[in-house]
Amino acid sequence: MVKRLLVGRKLANAQLGETLLPKRIALPVFASDALSSVAYAPDEILLTLSLAGMAGFYYSWPIALAVAAVMLIVVLSYRQTVHAYPSGGGDYEVATVNLGPNAGLVVASALLVDYILTVAVSVSSGVQNAKAIFPALQGNEGWVAALGILALMAMNLRGVRESGSFFAIPTYGFMIGVLGMTGWGLFRIFGMGEHLQAPTAGLEVIGSPSFEPLAGVAMVVLLARAFSSGCAALTGVEAISNGVPAFREPKSHNAATTLALLGGIAVTMLAGIIVLANLTGLKLVDPEGHSHFAKNGIPTEVAHETAMGQLARTVFDTFPPGFYFVIAMTMIILILAANTAFNGFPVLGSILARDGFLPKALHTRGDRLAYSNGIIALAAAAIVLVLIYNASVTSLIQLYVVGVFVSFTVSQFGMMRHWTRHLATERDPKVRARMQRSRVINAIGLTGTGIVLVIVLASKFIYGAYLAVLAMAAVFLLMRSIRRHYEKVSRETAVSPTEARLLPSRVRAVIMVQEVNKPTMRAVNFARATRASSIEAVTVSIDEAETRSIMAEWEAQGLEVPLRVIASPYREVTGPFLNYVKGIRSDNPRDVVCVYIPEYVVGHWWESLLHNQTGLILKARLNFMQGVMVTSVPYLLASSRYAINRAKRDNVAAWRRPGSGQVRMSDTDDRPAQK
Amino acid sequence: MVKRLLVGRKLANAQLGETLLPKRIALPVFASDALSSVAYAPDEILLTLSLAGMAGFYYSWPIALAVAAVMLIVVLSYRQTVHAYPSGGGDYEVATVNLGPNAGLVVASALLVDYILTVAVSVSSGVQNAKAIFPALQGNEGWVAALGILALMAMNLRGVRESGSFFAIPTYGFMIGVLGMTGWGLFRIFGMGEHLQAPTAGLEVIGSPSFEPLAGVAMVVLLARAFSSGCAALTGVEAISNGVPAFREPKSHNAATTLALLGGIAVTMLAGIIVLANLTGLKLVDPEGHSHFAKNGIPTEVAHETAMGQLARTVFDTFPPGFYFVIAMTMIILILAANTAFNGFPVLGSILARDGFLPKALHTRGDRLAYSNGIIALAAAAIVLVLIYNASVTSLIQLYVVGVFVSFTVSQFGMMRHWTRHLATERDPKVRARMQRSRVINAIGLTGTGIVLVIVLASKFIYGAYLAVLAMAAVFLLMRSIRRHYEKVSRETAVSPTEARLLPSRVRAVIMVQEVNKPTMRAVNFARATRASSIEAVTVSIDEAETRSIMAEWEAQGLEVPLRVIASPYREVTGPFLNYVKGIRSDNPRDVVCVYIPEYVVGHWWESLLHNQTGLILKARLNFMQGVMVTSVPYLLASSRYAINRAKRDNVAAWRRPGSGQVRMSDTDDRPAQK
Repeated sequence: MVKRLLVGRKLANAQLGETLLPKRIALPVFASDALSSVAYAPDEILLTLSLAGMAGFYYSWPIALAVAAVMLIVVLSYRQTVHAYPSGGGDYEVATVNLGPNAGLVVASALLVDYILTVAVSVSSGVQNAKAIFPALQGNEGWVAALGILALMAMNLRGVRESGSFFAIPTYGFMIGVLGMTGWGLFRIFGMGEHLQAPTAGLEVIGSPSFEPLAGVAMVVLLARAFSSGCAALTGVEAISNGVPAFREPKSHNAATTLALLGGIAVTMLAGIIVLANLTGLKLVDPEGHSHFAKNGIPTEVAHETAMGQLARTVFDTFPPGFYFVIAMTMIILILAANTAFNGFPVLGSILARDGFLPKALHTRGDRLAYSNGIIALAAAAIVLVLIYNASVTSLIQLYVVGVFVSFTVSQFGMMRHWTRHLATERDPKVRARMQRSRVINAIGLTGTGIVLVIVLASKFIYGAYLAVLAMAAVFLLMRSIRRHYEKVSRETAVSPTEARLLPSRVRAVIMVQEVNKPTMRAVNFARATRASSIEAVTVSIDEAETRSIMAEWEAQGLEVPLRVIASPYREVTGPFLNYVKGIRSDNPRDVVCVYIPEYVVGHWWESLLHNQTGLILKARLNFMQGVMVTSVPYLLASSRYAINRAKRDNVAAWRRPGSGQVRMSDTDDRPAQK
Repeated sequence: MVKRLLVGRKLANAQLGETLLPKRIALPVFASDALSSVAYAPDEILLTLSLAGMAGFYYSWPIALAVAAVMLIVVLSYRQTVHAYPSGGGDYEVATVNLGPNAGLVVASALLVDYILTVAVSVSSGVQNAKAIFPALQGNEGWVAALGILALMAMNLRGVRESGSFFAIPTYGFMIGVLGMTGWGLFRIFGMGEHLQAPTAGLEVIGSPSFEPLAGVAMVVLLARAFSSGCAALTGVEAISNGVPAFREPKSHNAATTLALLGGIAVTMLAGIIVLANLTGLKLVDPEGHSHFAKNGIPTEVAHETAMGQLARTVFDTFPPGFYFVIAMTMIILILAANTAFNGFPVLGSILARDGFLPKALHTRGDRLAYSNGIIALAAAAIVLVLIYNASVTSLIQLYVVGVFVSFTVSQFGMMRHWTRHLATERDPKVRARMQRSRVINAIGLTGTGIVLVIVLASKFIYGAYLAVLAMAAVFLLMRSIRRHYEKVSRETAVSPTEARLLPSRVRAVIMVQEVNKPTMRAVNFARATRASSIEAVTVSIDEAETRSIMAEWEAQGLEVPLRVIASPYREVTGPFLNYVKGIRSDNPRDVVCVYIPEYVVGHWWESLLHNQTGLILKARLNFMQGVMVTSVPYLLASSRYAINRAKRDNVAAWRRPGSGQVRMSDTDDRPAQK
């Protein structure tokens, strides 16, 4: 019931396609995920470096540069994808088409796990940033994040109608906020010569004991980890490649331009924050307690505020609205980023179901139910994560980046194959030259993302990345076995056109009788209407007096159908009835038996405990007999109107929801009063 | 699966009747419940009196006498019942027949609640007594009792075969143990002049602070509570009245004699323990901490050992085997007493189901499932109780006696009505005289048990009896609403013999097609065999390519059945299909639609997540349409053999169990290899 109330009308898939997006709207629609990572990627770089003590922060520049370089490579690579797959391929399609279903499945597993982590990381980062405004959240981050995910789930179950402007305002707001903050901060420092100091500027970081004598390998490992965490800034960049059909013409060109814009903005924002953090002496400590603060040589404790929070506080120290604007926009864009996962996860699930890797019902049953299950599964998994890790972005990020780079790398490999395949048939030298250039770019992309993947795996494996790898492997194996099962069943049930078909010679109707009442009479009428070869009613005698009264009432009805009474010394109904049906079958192996079971249709769940139990058991057992079909003849009790009204109300509620203009077919019968 | 493993073959109800019981076997069979209460009733009397300090124990004599007097009244009353209802009426039947269904329902509610308390109290007392041998149980009584109940549940689910001798040995052993202990103790004190002292003899009881100045009303209230607790000794006495048909001829006479014997033995044992406790200076303290020990004026703590344990230790101080024998027999008889509840509860449930007060499936579905549900429900409720009260008999006994005396009182009132009714028609003066004497006895019984009920309610209400009353009221209301629901449905579905019956004019067969494979072909064959007026296959198009391939395959099959394709812009199957069926119905209101749904029969639960989902939803929705019947055409996948083999294994296991000699019909099809 609760689910019914929550679940609303889903956005039709075609909807985005109906109104094509200009670049200025497409950018925010596809950018929220990628840009939002600017809210936590710099933090993770600085945090990891803090393990090396004060000296570590000097390395934030080169690391930001390395991340920017990877961003450049990824953007260039996906521009090729956008041109090659104007239909909106997506990494799963690219991998499946060019490298085969197993490669596609690897990408799909990585993406599914990553969607979960996107929700967990984004909401956790939102909660961490919210602490700048609501310090009381400290200590309850896990629960607050779980509540936030529940709220997102509820919103998505009811079906939020996302329009371009819904995305545009906060995304542009976030850009303006962060770039404005950076610009104003730099102007105050360099233009006005102010000495801006972050709240943590006076502190000294003692660093991690294990890294104390920082040299050689230890330092390299630490830098690799900081770089890997910073690569979180790249998540979500690939989203545009799925959405090419939503762009205005020329689609591919516009999408490629938007992609370049997105990459440029993300890198600029990331660099701005790192620069500002260095200039204001901002410090961050590992919330896990591996690095420590000291003030004037005396160890001290401080609350963990995000870099965004500290910088906004510092830069806008004389202009509080600026501070609130930056924090609010950061929170909103993080929520939007989580929301994109809520849209993408069920869509990918539906595509996988179409290909037989997930239960087919998720695809064919259509929109609402399948998407609801996907949304609930995603929310449940993300809630488990934020509760286990107490919404610590630093812990969650260890699991996060693996999936993205698995998908990047496989997809780039797929693109190389794509070009190679097309080069084999292409004769036009100009086109060939362009293809060869694209192949080189994708080769660079493959090398770059592959190296990053290795760095990420090596530097984070023991810190949590192994969990992500395990999860992907589990999802991969599960989907493969589902596909195998479907293939086995499909082979088992395949019909050859030449197969001889034997029609059963006769149909023998058997009506199960427990009482002589309207439902039973209806079953008799329906059975007679089907004109079976033979027809009889069967009752199991569990109480002699009762049986006699049933027989008398049967006589009184004056039916032309004979009533057969089966003895049951153990007051059991199912056993003797099944044996009787079995007997008919073995006496007439070429005939088919059709068992008619009168069924009460009730309006409340508890009523079903009081009715139909014997029929349900019979049906389950009869299913295991060859050549027996079971016909349920429903009889609607007066109370069934409650269930029908409930179903109608739900539908009406879906209709009335603002914005759901399209006509939708009713799922339940309107049931005129005829009987 | 687990349940299937646990559940075994049930004892046929008729079995006890097949071999009629001589008195010497009937006594132990029916006495375990009644006699076992001797293991805790004296403790509860002494415990309650201890609240009044040392002075309290002097009142144990008169209270034992009062309990004996009530026992005499109850035994005399039930001898009348035994003579009047030689068919084994039981309190529920007596109340229903003489006072109407509501009175019967009151008794049934009281008995159901009491069965639960019998299990909880008996097992708890068993654990308390076991502490005499295993002191390590101290502190874990609740969990140990819960485990004990689980073991009893498992035993009963598998179906223990109880024979007379199974009961006889421990029951007689318990009698010999307790009476022998009393006799030997009295002989040592009076015959040999020994000065026997219980382990707690040297202690002084400080008593409850609230009762310190014991006078007037406070003392009366305390004595009433002690008496009420002592009345626990009467529980189970009525059991013989249910079992008259199991006695040898003359049944009623033998049952009445056994009843008198039982009462005499129970009172003797109770009195013996009270006497011995007084002579040896035995002390008991309230484990709830309302009374305290002192030794030489200094407060002290002692472990809580039962009276039975202390007496056995004292009397057999020089003969340890005697001590172990008494404790072991006490534990066994308490377990047997709990076991009688496991037999009685499902039987009563089945009778109530027959009368429509519980789901009818519990009666008609026969033996195994119904009894299993009853056994599990009983065990679960009892486990909750022992865990809440940590297996404290003293706490549980506050809830216990209410139900017994409700049932006694109502039953006695019913017996008075019984005699009055018969006196109205009886003319033979000798018979009339006997009836009038019986009515006087039952009137005394009614008065006696009624007064005890009032005392019990008044003295224990706030200590826990109100919970028992609430539980009874809840059970009563629940059963009444179930009955009302059945009556309403029965009125709604009643057929009058003169009612005109319209046969539907035509049957229109609709076959749901999702794929062209063997299950679909089978559905087509079966539908064709039924010779419907019109027949068509219907598929919902969710993917154009797929639909084209389905149409091509359909053509290739060369079927005479047309395939109709329904468009579905939203990739939804159920909605458009239901609308199509609805359309047929409203175009042809006098016809019946029969929807054929091919169904995969699978062998593992997880496979059902991968198949049939669309069919299941369709069936549930089609049920709400008038004039539509749904036929499932099962197709057994190869994996279904696992489920069939599982069912067979279970049945074979039931057959092979030693002692289950009777032939039982197989529940599942043996399925010869024909297709």
